[in-house]
Amino acid sequence: MLGEHPKWAFVGVGAMGGYIAGRLAAGGEDMHLLLRSDYEAVRAQGMTVEIVPDEQVFRLTPDDVNPARDPAEIGPVDVVVVGLKSTANEALRTLLPPLLKPETVLVTLQNGLGNVELLSEIAQTNRVLGALCQIGANRVEPGLVRNFTPRGGFVQFGELPGAPEGLMQAVGERFQAAGIRVRYAASLGEALWRKLMWNVPFNGLTILSGMVPTIEIVEDPALRGVSLALMEELRLAAGRLGYAIEADYGPKQVEFTHKLGAYLPSTLLDYRAGRPVEVEAIWGEPLRLGQAAGQKMPHLAQLYAILRKLTKQGA
Amino acid sequence: MLGEHPKWAFVGVGAMGGYIAGRLAAGGEDMHLLLRSDYEAVRAQGMTVEIVPDEQVFRLTPDDVNPARDPAEIGPVDVVVVGLKSTANEALRTLLPPLLKPETVLVTLQNGLGNVELLSEIAQTNRVLGALCQIGANRVEPGLVRNFTPRGGFVQFGELPGAPEGLMQAVGERFQAAGIRVRYAASLGEALWRKLMWNVPFNGLTILSGMVPTIEIVEDPALRGVSLALMEELRLAAGRLGYAIEADYGPKQVEFTHKLGAYLPSTLLDYRAGRPVEVEAIWGEPLRLGQAAGQKMPHLAQLYAILRKLTKQGA
Repeated sequence: MLGEHPKWAFVGVGAMGGYIAGRLAAGGEDMHLLLRSDYEAVRAQGMTVEIVPDEQVFRLTPDDVNPARDPAEIGPVDVVVVGLKSTANEALRTLLPPLLKPETVLVTLQNGLGNVELLSEIAQTNRVLGALCQIGANRVEPGLVRNFTPRGGFVQFGELPGAPEGLMQAVGERFQAAGIRVRYAASLGEALWRKLMWNVPFNGLTILSGMVPTIEIVEDPALRGVSLALMEELRLAAGRLGYAIEADYGPKQVEFTHKLGAYLPSTLLDYRAGRPVEVEAIWGEPLRLGQAAGQKMPHLAQLYAILRKLTKQGA
Repeated sequence: MLGEHPKWAFVGVGAMGGYIAGRLAAGGEDMHLLLRSDYEAVRAQGMTVEIVPDEQVFRLTPDDVNPARDPAEIGPVDVVVVGLKSTANEALRTLLPPLLKPETVLVTLQNGLGNVELLSEIAQTNRVLGALCQIGANRVEPGLVRNFTPRGGFVQFGELPGAPEGLMQAVGERFQAAGIRVRYAASLGEALWRKLMWNVPFNGLTILSGMVPTIEIVEDPALRGVSLALMEELRLAAGRLGYAIEADYGPKQVEFTHKLGAYLPSTLLDYRAGRPVEVEAIWGEPLRLGQAAGQKMPHLAQLYAILRKLTKQGA
């Protein structure tokens, strides 16, 4: 379905994109990175990917990853992987077309809702996959990505409804061949809503409560209660949209978050560094979809309104 | 009821206390200010009260306001006015007794719930009034209070149930004689809940939304919606407690807040300056009372949980 030796382009090579592109390149895939600020460094020295708990290091030469500054230098590819922040999504309308041919598969690593649909619209294709990264990683400096997750974490694939059968398995097999652990979701929509049940409370409340790590949210009884209320609003909204999520999924996420320890979500780091925060993808879209489906979401409405204003994306 | 020339003591001379004490003193009342950090400045230069929209300025000499550092220097008075932050309420147990005689009237300018009851308990009297300030004012520097409200805003009095008949009118007349506009509430409880309908959304959302002035809350459609939802939760809770507040009171408060312009609530200034924030009096008490009366208050519960953690008063 992808051919013998597919050509890959990565658009947005931050922590997640860098980790995955680096391992695919180390596995021998024909890799092409579209870079801006990191171009000079990668052109000169290539890139390095580390998995800290496993003491694994992957070193890539510039020729392994073919850095480019303009998508026209890369030209049409078999798979485009998008790792941009969703706040920069409008740039995809100019960045993607030079990379596309009719059979190109698009994969998004992005957080929140609306990204798969946007790729489908821009590329006019149903060959679009969501790839949800359960990975804690940082881009430490240009050309250096550090993954803090034992065994590198995993990537969960889901297909856009109407995508060709077996597409996500075909892409997933290349990931697995490069040593990246993979899961497949029966429903992309359901997987995205499950991920939101974590991102909505913890990415949001850690920012508003004084830039605290997630463990301080679950250890504060009032904030733990608010987290569970937010999760329940999302679970009921997901149910109205046809995604049945079990009632104890929220409480289990609280338990998991307690075990995660003093974790600072990426959104909190973005906010603290003055970078754009993905307010619409994580909070705005689920609110609008849930409300349109008839679900009352007072906790989410308030959280979204505050975060939108706080990050100066408000009126 | 107060005698010909009552003696006043003000405990807590911030924006509201400063404005009212200053005008009463300018009106010839026998004023005594209990001061801490502002003592030296007021002792040296007196104090100034400005009403910006009316271009009115009241200048008081040190002798007009008799600054003191210890309540024993003042001794028993006819009226004690409390303008302390409710976070410092425990200090009243030592500050008040030297100012009291059996017939002393106590007036609280404080925000939120629980203050009238505390004064009544400390002074063992039912001669306690609530005085709710509909005034936008700031203490700009020691000895300088600036009031941003046209005609100075107004003070609404309410009596503790069981207070002597006519008590609030007797105090109110002295205010009026000094040029402070006055209203009388049929029910102190109802007046307090009406005031909370402003304080809960605007004092809270301005902090969380990036320390913005109140006008930015009402001009942001999502935050205006959240403000109205918070007001409605409080209105329904007040209804369950026997205080009938009309349905359009919330929307009218939004209109009023729009006219108020770029106002920074005192709580926001406190938070920004690292001072304690009145989280329990403004958000905690109404939540507990409303929930105990059977009212669901999801917006307030979330706002309270976040503010409590943000101001480090949480678990």
